[in-house]
Amino acid sequence: MIYYRIKDIELKIHGRIDNALDVVPLLANGHGIEVNVTGSQLWADVEADYEDYEPWAAIEVNGSLTSRFMVDKGRQRICLFKGRSPEKITRVKFYRELQAMSEDAKTCIVIRGLWTDGGFKGPPTYEHKLEFVGDSISSGEGTYGAREDTDWIASCMSYSRTYINLIGHELNAECRVISQGGWGVFSGWDNDRRHAIPSIYEQICGLAGCTGDKYGAGRAHDFASWVPDAILINLGTNDREGFNQPPFKDPDTGEFYKLNTAPDGSFVGEDIELIKSAVVDFLKMVRRDNPASHIVWLYGMLGYDLSLTLADALNRYKAETGDGNVAYLQLPATNEKTVGSNGHPGYEAHKIAAEILVDYLKEHI
Amino acid sequence: MIYYRIKDIELKIHGRIDNALDVVPLLANGHGIEVNVTGSQLWADVEADYEDYEPWAAIEVNGSLTSRFMVDKGRQRICLFKGRSPEKITRVKFYRELQAMSEDAKTCIVIRGLWTDGGFKGPPTYEHKLEFVGDSISSGEGTYGAREDTDWIASCMSYSRTYINLIGHELNAECRVISQGGWGVFSGWDNDRRHAIPSIYEQICGLAGCTGDKYGAGRAHDFASWVPDAILINLGTNDREGFNQPPFKDPDTGEFYKLNTAPDGSFVGEDIELIKSAVVDFLKMVRRDNPASHIVWLYGMLGYDLSLTLADALNRYKAETGDGNVAYLQLPATNEKTVGSNGHPGYEAHKIAAEILVDYLKEHI
Amino acid sequence: MIYYRIKDIELKIHGRIDNALDVVPLLANGHGIEVNVTGSQLWADVEADYEDYEPWAAIEVNGSLTSRFMVDKGRQRICLFKGRSPEKITRVKFYRELQAMSEDAKTCIVIRGLWTDGGFKGPPTYEHKLEFVGDSISSGEGTYGAREDTDWIASCMSYSRTYINLIGHELNAECRVISQGGWGVFSGWDNDRRHAIPSIYEQICGLAGCTGDKYGAGRAHDFASWVPDAILINLGTNDREGFNQPPFKDPDTGEFYKLNTAPDGSFVGEDIELIKSAVVDFLKMVRRDNPASHIVWLYGMLGYDLSLTLADALNRYKAETGDGNVAYLQLPATNEKTVGSNGHPGYEAHKIAAEILVDYLKEHI
Amino acid sequence: MIYYRIKDIELKIHGRIDNALDVVPLLANGHGIEVNVTGSQLWADVEADYEDYEPWAAIEVNGSLTSRFMVDKGRQRICLFKGRSPEKITRVKFYRELQAMSEDAKTCIVIRGLWTDGGFKGPPTYEHKLEFVGDSISSGEGTYGAREDTDWIASCMSYSRTYINLIGHELNAECRVISQGGWGVFSGWDNDRRHAIPSIYEQICGLAGCTGDKYGAGRAHDFASWVPDAILINLGTNDREGFNQPPFKDPDTGEFYKLNTAPDGSFVGEDIELIKSAVVDFLKMVRRDNPASHIVWLYGMLGYDLSLTLADALNRYKAETGDGNVAYLQLPATNEKTVGSNGHPGYEAHKIAAEILVDYLKEHI
Repeated sequence: MIYYRIKDIELKIHGRIDNALDVVPLLANGHGIEVNVTGSQLWADVEADYEDYEPWAAIEVNGSLTSRFMVDKGRQRICLFKGRSPEKITRVKFYRELQAMSEDAKTCIVIRGLWTDGGFKGPPTYEHKLEFVGDSISSGEGTYGAREDTDWIASCMSYSRTYINLIGHELNAECRVISQGGWGVFSGWDNDRRHAIPSIYEQICGLAGCTGDKYGAGRAHDFASWVPDAILINLGTNDREGFNQPPFKDPDTGEFYKLNTAPDGSFVGEDIELIKSAVVDFLKMVRRDNPASHIVWLYGMLGYDLSLTLADALNRYKAETGDGNVAYLQLPATNEKTVGSNGHPGYEAHKIAAEILVDYLKEHI
Repeated sequence: MIYYRIKDIELKIHGRIDNALDVVPLLANGHGIEVNVTGSQLWADVEADYEDYEPWAAIEVNGSLTSRFMVDKGRQRICLFKGRSPEKITRVKFYRELQAMSEDAKTCIVIRGLWTDGGFKGPPTYEHKLEFVGDSISSGEGTYGAREDTDWIASCMSYSRTYINLIGHELNAECRVISQGGWGVFSGWDNDRRHAIPSIYEQICGLAGCTGDKYGAGRAHDFASWVPDAILINLGTNDREGFNQPPFKDPDTGEFYKLNTAPDGSFVGEDIELIKSAVVDFLKMVRRDNPASHIVWLYGMLGYDLSLTLADALNRYKAETGDGNVAYLQLPATNEKTVGSNGHPGYEAHKIAAEILVDYLKEHI
Repeated sequence: MIYYRIKDIELKIHGRIDNALDVVPLLANGHGIEVNVTGSQLWADVEADYEDYEPWAAIEVNGSLTSRFMVDKGRQRICLFKGRSPEKITRVKFYRELQAMSEDAKTCIVIRGLWTDGGFKGPPTYEHKLEFVGDSISSGEGTYGAREDTDWIASCMSYSRTYINLIGHELNAECRVISQGGWGVFSGWDNDRRHAIPSIYEQICGLAGCTGDKYGAGRAHDFASWVPDAILINLGTNDREGFNQPPFKDPDTGEFYKLNTAPDGSFVGEDIELIKSAVVDFLKMVRRDNPASHIVWLYGMLGYDLSLTLADALNRYKAETGDGNVAYLQLPATNEKTVGSNGHPGYEAHKIAAEILVDYLKEHI
Repeated sequence: MIYYRIKDIELKIHGRIDNALDVVPLLANGHGIEVNVTGSQLWADVEADYEDYEPWAAIEVNGSLTSRFMVDKGRQRICLFKGRSPEKITRVKFYRELQAMSEDAKTCIVIRGLWTDGGFKGPPTYEHKLEFVGDSISSGEGTYGAREDTDWIASCMSYSRTYINLIGHELNAECRVISQGGWGVFSGWDNDRRHAIPSIYEQICGLAGCTGDKYGAGRAHDFASWVPDAILINLGTNDREGFNQPPFKDPDTGEFYKLNTAPDGSFVGEDIELIKSAVVDFLKMVRRDNPASHIVWLYGMLGYDLSLTLADALNRYKAETGDGNVAYLQLPATNEKTVGSNGHPGYEAHKIAAEILVDYLKEHI
């Protein structure tokens, strides 16, 4: 086998990753590389690290998942396939399952090169580009693991079994996802206002303050470099949870924050207003960054309580901007047959969501 | 067998029907009678009529559909079951499949009495009451018939295969439906503003101007007599179609009506406003009539285009009234796998909608 | 509408029915007529009768079931469709759901003619011919009715929801079925040896001693007139039941008959031998009558206990005759998810069987 | 974390593995270890090797697959889980996906010990014991990989997605499997008569001549040590293929072997007889080794051509021995919807087979 440095390979890089690097750092879920290659085998030269939350990865060969595994610390070679007819072209995707982890500044997978006895035949191509923005649902929490598993652990999250990956396969679409479990459009599940997805939407590759920093995480993304046909924002579930949770004390300012319910259990209007404003502002940001993309707000896989709030914000955004290229799409709530680990949508729930979205996207992109 | 006149039988009457009558007229879809009875057989004494659109009926025995058929003109006896163990209690429901037909003033099924060799054991009971308000989707258009069937005919409509009947079985809920194919909340599919469901919502048993008149159709419904746990309004699909259709000339006034699209294909704002106002007004009417019921607006089985419009109207209604007992629930669009006859949701689409609504209602009623 | 006598209509007659008659008697399950017709409506001129077991019928329009109902006594007109675009060709099948009933000498549906405002456009054509031979499974017992229904009644049987009808639709095959609930290849479920399907296999249209007699039931069938691509024999389930049942006293001879189990619960060898001989003899009969047809013995939908017995008989038949055009195919046993009324295979079980058989037949006919 | 040598751990060993060893060698598909353990994490001390065919393994935590991956050469630690609540008991199974590989004398995974910060809480228990004997179907060939994949490679085989694993989960049964792709009951797919499963059935842990030798592979299995409730033999598919293939030259003897078809395409009787004799002899061996187990012969997932041959052999075995505790069960053939990679049954086909077998076994064990 011959060793090829990343820069010498015609490959497709999945995710908002700095193309100028000599390596490919997989900093978030769905980040990966994909190649068309001849030869009987293909191996990756990988370096990984973590402190508390180990990174997970998956391999798809010719569009089918063959492997899914934790990547341990250290420099290592990982077999992407072996034993295949060398004259045929094999399409291989190696990608990160785990979202960017703010809880672990070290979590990282870096691809340095590939070995093969064959040759690279140009990167795979796609008919569409789709961008997904979300929370734990889009980070695939619940798509692996037993129903009785209730720990928040890396192995229960995935990209492989999300609606995102299913849609990508069905529509031959290159998909990117910016998602953080527990985050919202305005504030996180625990009322932490720092955990708002808009704060990271315009950055490349995941969260600042992590290993990713040395690979450019947190730098401004060049939106002109990759124009999605549609952007699907699946946020609101954690904002809603804030109404149930106790106040959050901001460790920097000492201030307490909470979304409040009235004595009758209804959401307090001015707190709903905070969410709506955040939605409107985020839509303006997304539109500014992506003038031509169809934008769809998704909601419902873990409950419908903010349906009208989100819809109202979308209407306000449309009224304020005149932008008609925005839609609202509700997805069926996860039930006892479709739930996965940790009370989150399981693989079956993601299949149902994917089917609805595939139908929708076929008519709109 | 002994003959029992309707007034002498302990039966459950399904539908908004005048209980003071000596007969049970089945004036709309879902109207019917249900009994618990011993004996080996049960027959119905029925009189039916029609001019152009023949009425259809169905029989469920012990919760399972055994028969579905056109009811021809004239006085006739219809077998509801035969040959069963006489000592067991058999639960039987005989109901109309076809919606009230404004196109045919004669369409009618009237039940005058029952014959049995057993005895009536008290009417069946239900745990819940649900009211559905809708259009052709709720009239079951498309739930029977081949995909290539494109005629608007009575046999392609049903109550038996609708999401309504499926939900009723799953939740042990007594269901009523007020629906008219082609009608909207503001105007009909062809821009006919007379075809707005609110105009008939407060009446009993179907449309005025029909055979039903002599059975009280069009009289005011006594809302205190039957208080639903939830009211599900599945309207908007035909209002949206009006934007695609030519102007409608009102035969009474000579005026032309149409919902208009702008040159760029978007819906004209003031016409959208007409729909929103109709939604708000209808919600106020429904709430006035049903102070305690949970109200859910359903939409999406034939397209999502008015999602934000409807949601905006719901929000406005909530803001104007402070009523928090109202929700919006989107249902998946029918696709090529779930479509039925005449381009309408097929039985598979209704099953999917029912599953989502059963999950929802389990938590809200 | 114009009235057409049966002899004046180009129609497809389903079932082994005497073509020389002036009427079409529907003497058994699957017997029916099928036409291609223009016009807005089509009605049948029908005469029916019964003493204890009322006949049931179904209507399929353009391949889709629209109606299923009991046919009451007397001369009557039955609407097959109404309100369709008159210029289109509509394909209509009207057929009997209920098997021939030895328990009721009067059960009968006779079609005398058709009314239409259109014209007949030549009978529908099929790509294949399939003949099914069976017992209650093939008579569709259990395909209608609730799971708690345990009476043996006409309404719980059908042709419409059997694997036979499903296969016919999937393969565009004209299907005939000769089946009797409770009958076996050697003896009936209650050890009644008169209830062996081979005794009626070579006759036309159902059972002797019934109303059918005047329409030729019991006369020799002309096998050259309709050569099936395959013959599927689904027998053995009732023979097996005989081992569980008490002896049967033949009312004619006073002799007692029973298939016996040994003290350890196993089937007594010589009684198994009786079944095997019956299978071998029946296969010889079927082959003699149908020299070119592929023959498949089906078994298993209600238990696998006689699998090896049946297979042994098939092997013996092959060894004795050298006939290699015979196969054995086991079908999955009905389970609690797929069971229907009266402990019999439900619609779901029939769908599963049909899918397996469609796969098989695609490769063998 | 503390390191525990294998001998110091209360664990369940899956597969016929020499219990006296200081390590657990995973020599074939389904071989593995399983523990109940507290603690936040569990790691395995593993040594692996291969020449051409790399071993694959899988991890199930609390009954759910979390990871599946190739095991590379060398001594390594493999994380079985991480980050879980330390006070809870976690059930973990680590097992080999790949069958014993006669083509690679080095393929091996050896477990030497475990690290954990918790404690072992006694081995998991099962309600049943089931033994499966088979070929590539039971080795899970086709359960991973894309449909267009046609190479015979390790990654396309599994234990995790086989009907065996599915049945084990559904019935809470400890399952063992002795299977070799390409092997038959009499001869292999290529007419190689050395590739007959009976030749290895009585040995422990896989094939002789491999790395396994040093771990006792090929030594006599102690059948008294593990008495299965049922033994399911899924063989015959490769024997049938021999009729299609050219003669095989035995490299040791120079003799040619082939199963022959007659000019009319039928199987030559004396060659069928070879298969039947092999079946009878194998059944005698299995019965001698397992006097009390229910034995079921399975067949059909890749075609039904030998149904009657196999059934005949079972009948002969029963006649010769009087053994009534033997059954024949046919499984549905894989179709275009259920096929996996390399023309073999895919995951969907295994699910269907499992459902049928679970129903069967519920009544027979």
